Amino acid sequence: MSALEQSSALGAVRTIDVIRRKRDGHELSPAEIAYLVRGYTRGEIPDYQISAWLMAALIRGLTRAETAALTDSMLHSGKILDLSEFKVAKVDKHSTGGVGDKTSLVLAPLVAAGGLVVPMISGRALGHTGGTLDKLESIPGFRVDLSLVRFREVLRACGCSMIGQTAEIAPADRKLYSLRDVTGTVESPYLICASIMSKKMAEGIEALVLDVKTGSGSFMKTERDAVFLAELMVETSQRMGKKTVALITDMEQPLGRRIGNSLEVQECSEVLHGRGPADLRDLSLELAAWMFHLGGRVQAIAEGKALAERIIRSGQALETFCKMVALQGGDSRAIEDPTRLPRAKHASDLTSDKSGYIRAIQCEDVGKACVVLGGGREKKEDCVDPAVGIVLHKKVGDRVSVGEPFCTLHYNSESRAAHATKLIEQSVEIADAPPAPRPLVHRVIGDRNAK
Amino acid sequence: MSALEQSSALGAVRTIDVIRRKRDGHELSPAEIAYLVRGYTRGEIPDYQISAWLMAALIRGLTRAETAALTDSMLHSGKILDLSEFKVAKVDKHSTGGVGDKTSLVLAPLVAAGGLVVPMISGRALGHTGGTLDKLESIPGFRVDLSLVRFREVLRACGCSMIGQTAEIAPADRKLYSLRDVTGTVESPYLICASIMSKKMAEGIEALVLDVKTGSGSFMKTERDAVFLAELMVETSQRMGKKTVALITDMEQPLGRRIGNSLEVQECSEVLHGRGPADLRDLSLELAAWMFHLGGRVQAIAEGKALAERIIRSGQALETFCKMVALQGGDSRAIEDPTRLPRAKHASDLTSDKSGYIRAIQCEDVGKACVVLGGGREKKEDCVDPAVGIVLHKKVGDRVSVGEPFCTLHYNSESRAAHATKLIEQSVEIADAPPAPRPLVHRVIGDRNAK
Repeated sequence: MSALEQSSALGAVRTIDVIRRKRDGHELSPAEIAYLVRGYTRGEIPDYQISAWLMAALIRGLTRAETAALTDSMLHSGKILDLSEFKVAKVDKHSTGGVGDKTSLVLAPLVAAGGLVVPMISGRALGHTGGTLDKLESIPGFRVDLSLVRFREVLRACGCSMIGQTAEIAPADRKLYSLRDVTGTVESPYLICASIMSKKMAEGIEALVLDVKTGSGSFMKTERDAVFLAELMVETSQRMGKKTVALITDMEQPLGRRIGNSLEVQECSEVLHGRGPADLRDLSLELAAWMFHLGGRVQAIAEGKALAERIIRSGQALETFCKMVALQGGDSRAIEDPTRLPRAKHASDLTSDKSGYIRAIQCEDVGKACVVLGGGREKKEDCVDPAVGIVLHKKVGDRVSVGEPFCTLHYNSESRAAHATKLIEQSVEIADAPPAPRPLVHRVIGDRNAK
Repeated sequence: MSALEQSSALGAVRTIDVIRRKRDGHELSPAEIAYLVRGYTRGEIPDYQISAWLMAALIRGLTRAETAALTDSMLHSGKILDLSEFKVAKVDKHSTGGVGDKTSLVLAPLVAAGGLVVPMISGRALGHTGGTLDKLESIPGFRVDLSLVRFREVLRACGCSMIGQTAEIAPADRKLYSLRDVTGTVESPYLICASIMSKKMAEGIEALVLDVKTGSGSFMKTERDAVFLAELMVETSQRMGKKTVALITDMEQPLGRRIGNSLEVQECSEVLHGRGPADLRDLSLELAAWMFHLGGRVQAIAEGKALAERIIRSGQALETFCKMVALQGGDSRAIEDPTRLPRAKHASDLTSDKSGYIRAIQCEDVGKACVVLGGGREKKEDCVDPAVGIVLHKKVGDRVSVGEPFCTLHYNSESRAAHATKLIEQSVEIADAPPAPRPLVHRVIGDRNAK
């Protein structure tokens, strides 16, 4: 009997009793959680009762079983894609978000070109972090609002497709997220886990690689918090029958050199051409290797990386990307020719006022600078300027001399550029010696169980 | 600058930031609390944000300063009576509620006859506990819904008046209480304190005696919880400039012998005649003595008790009660002649099936039995039958023989009587020896500061 069926049998469940039990720190049954989620989605339980429950859940925490039950109820509030027509493994990657984090645009075509199917449903920029959908939309004509029918057609044609959450996918999450957003209940790892996982599980995938960021530019500032969330997501996903690993990866400085929507598309195109900055390239290869591994394509991670490199070198990853762009209505010529992407009216260099080594680039400030330029969102309703952003010529550990340009701002408004300049200047720290290098991948979680 | 004025100056306060601060266990400023209460009362802050805040407040707790600020904001959401026209002290008593707890009907006329003014705004029965307003309304014609203008006239005429909360008094409390009732946030001592105190402070009193019940029939089951709530209420009231003490009193068995609305009016009339059960009489004298003491009428409690006894003996307390009843539209002859009060159609005795001593009367069960008979409320909307109830012939420590009646049920429905009988039978415990007697007043809190 599913949790939903059980909850139908619970005629006598009273919402207030369920709230009280969570308030007092008790574990709720899957049936009680299903009752709340279903009642709320159907409009039978009012906002004010669910917000009290959300606050109790945030403060008291959820057990693993409760987190899985919540994820399951939210998942079953909407459609779950059946991709069994594809005989190869369906795999996806999800990142908790960062500054300059653009690996999805590399990974989807790369892993699809490697013979797996990547049905990717992504999100938008919010706060100082960018969003995959906004990056894709900077490609002229690119549509992220495909129907699930069209999504499937694109998957059939090129093995990958990248779209936004549709109304059919996890409607409970959409409703709960809106309420969390206005009631101070966003910042719960349990609720974050259920929100992410309910959408990912709806994709009809068999395996999932999680990229959980840690550092100044991530949502989880400390490695401890990142590991906590990663373990929670891995365990929830594994309970629901998906092969899952989480990589704890570094977000102490922006990933790659370009931040801003069309600038990031250009940088992904470089990586797909076999060029591009080392950190973005290395992380993309690492994540691709794990996707190949979980998808049964390779035995070892080293083998997966080698495969990914070969696919890039062969031009197949780039070709798959161009194909997907064209299938989703975008101008695929813009991938080869960046002059076809939106370009900001102005560009100006910021120069260093001393010599030394770049010791730190606080990436929350860099992310905010991009938002200030118009390239991100402070509120959900804000429009995004696809052209603006920042190109970093120096990264942490690099030498810089007085008067040398360390970054270029691409902007459409002088006053915004002035504000962004201040944020970037305060984000960069120059010292006499370079800092100890940080690893790109700090830890891998869930590997043993996932194999 | 008052908290309300300060909050006007806080143009930039965002509701969600205030919720988050309480969620994370920080202390809110008076201005932040005033902002929430005012915004909610005016309909500018929605239910779902306040319920999240209430849950955070329940789980995290409030500091003394926050509790006082919340009380103050709720108080100032409505009218505060100015009774400065009365040159004597204005005093009141508030009880946290119990079974058979009817002292208000004795105290208001008794203390008024002693020369003080008692402006009493009371509540209704809910759950297993009775309500002063329901008891008064069992007197034919008695109106508890007086306007504040008429309330003042009755006070002028006889020194006391007893009414229900009007729409003008603490409207924030009314709105918040309704929300707490459906969101599992009733059971917070801080919120209970602010709710009670905001209404009591609106009465324009200078002194307040709190009767905080402890034991099986009270809301606060353990003495520790009762003391916690009492200290919170005393400190909040004293911070707001009122002389205040709290008596922790026993509610392990019903107070007096009669439970049920018109039955309790009869018992109060007995006490005002100088008769009545010892526990009800003693507690009434003790509470009256503290009211006289805080109101500056006597130096010592013993002196206050002697004064109260003299006033009862003189017939002045009874006369004041009859006068108040008449002024509020009631049939004052019913106070002398109980046949004029509503009477149940049937009465039947419950007899003991063994001999021994009454060891316990679980008064939550007795209270529920009265509700089952129709004499109380399970839900706010329920109607109350004024005639039904229970008369105890035996109390804890009394000897009982096989076949001896230990109580009489007064009822209007056989099926309800059968259900009530079961509850009462399970409530009474008979043993070979009587239990150690419990004191009626366990502790007095706040005395030193109140003097």
